[in-house]
Amino acid sequence: MKDKPKAVVLLSGGLDSTTTLAMAKSQGFDVYALSFRYGQRHKVELEAAQQITRYFQAAKHLIMDIDLRLFGGSALTDNIEVPKNRQAGEINKAIPVTYVPARNTIFLSFALAWAEILGSEDIFIGANVLDYSGYPDCRPEYLAAFERMANLATKAGVEGRQKLKVHTPLIQMTKAQIIKKGLELGVDFSLTHSCYDPYETGEACGRCDSCRLRLKGFREAGVSDPAKYRTKVLV
Amino acid sequence: MKDKPKAVVLLSGGLDSTTTLAMAKSQGFDVYALSFRYGQRHKVELEAAQQITRYFQAAKHLIMDIDLRLFGGSALTDNIEVPKNRQAGEINKAIPVTYVPARNTIFLSFALAWAEILGSEDIFIGANVLDYSGYPDCRPEYLAAFERMANLATKAGVEGRQKLKVHTPLIQMTKAQIIKKGLELGVDFSLTHSCYDPYETGEACGRCDSCRLRLKGFREAGVSDPAKYRTKVLV
Repeated sequence: MKDKPKAVVLLSGGLDSTTTLAMAKSQGFDVYALSFRYGQRHKVELEAAQQITRYFQAAKHLIMDIDLRLFGGSALTDNIEVPKNRQAGEINKAIPVTYVPARNTIFLSFALAWAEILGSEDIFIGANVLDYSGYPDCRPEYLAAFERMANLATKAGVEGRQKLKVHTPLIQMTKAQIIKKGLELGVDFSLTHSCYDPYETGEACGRCDSCRLRLKGFREAGVSDPAKYRTKVLV
Repeated sequence: MKDKPKAVVLLSGGLDSTTTLAMAKSQGFDVYALSFRYGQRHKVELEAAQQITRYFQAAKHLIMDIDLRLFGGSALTDNIEVPKNRQAGEINKAIPVTYVPARNTIFLSFALAWAEILGSEDIFIGANVLDYSGYPDCRPEYLAAFERMANLATKAGVEGRQKLKVHTPLIQMTKAQIIKKGLELGVDFSLTHSCYDPYETGEACGRCDSCRLRLKGFREAGVSDPAKYRTKVLV
């Protein structure tokens, strides 16, 4: 029996990356999940990621520690206030303070290192341009440029043995479509975590951009969100 | 008085990155030096980097901890034997076991994050294609692809406010030329460290690829190498 091909999947523990992992698995890959402890305030994300990799029987799950607080500069790593109660129209207008500089580039670089060591040609990332939060490093032109660079960066690329692909299966999907796809593939969304500013109890705030986009997605998908919220503000 | 522009300089503590730092400084930049503790065996490198940043009065020096041992796969992070006593012709032939997958991509990604936070448009890296050790991520086409990707990755890039440049001032220089340039700019090469496999005393082995390329460079520059060696094998 031939081994399944290996894929490195970036997993935050949120709705998008979890659905991406399920898609990689459904496409026949052995999943090597990669998460990061990067000084973010929501460690609950990583607990979600661990439950998800067990649920989907990932071949391996690594959590890489990187201290982006050393550089400062983002609401997700510093003590800047996470914006709350913004309308959907507002959310996509400008790059928000929750943006972490070069985060996807750093995450994808580590994924590239692991892929090269595993002999994998496939990296999956749950980037999305529709219901995203205005991050520059979620755009298709950025991701294509990363893929091109990655193919010049590695030993396998130089020797022409491998062609690395950065898979972005969610890139053109709405949040509602992602939720439907996830349900179709057996994702238990109660395991996923999206909130930028959760309570100590693990409850989601229901008011940050990420909660609002998630709630809007579930409403549009006609499904109720199994996540635990302290408050829910419909957008 | 106008502030000097800021540059992020990747600094390993070796001969190349130290000369690169001196060049950034001589071009009028305020230097923000970035080093990594990545599970490498030669912690003496980081001590060298600290001395160098003091010597050149860097505006700031950050050491980022990243544990690449989590992935495994290289002589510089694992317990694989570092090759010794190879001839110059041999050194450039194939990608050696000392290659760390995606290392420059990871380093440059962190430099990109810091540059964005600092409002800097300039990253310096001491990559070199002539007397290098056959690493794919030192090639000009790779570095150009990284720069292109970087300009799509950031907030400033998207807003068209900034044009990020990856400076590679050593790219076409021989080791001898780098040494001469460094001396011209006041580099004290006794502070720099190049050995892949130093002794506990800090002495260089004199036999690994990096020592041999360094010794060859000093010989060709007609200057004696002030580094401390246990043994010296001329190539």
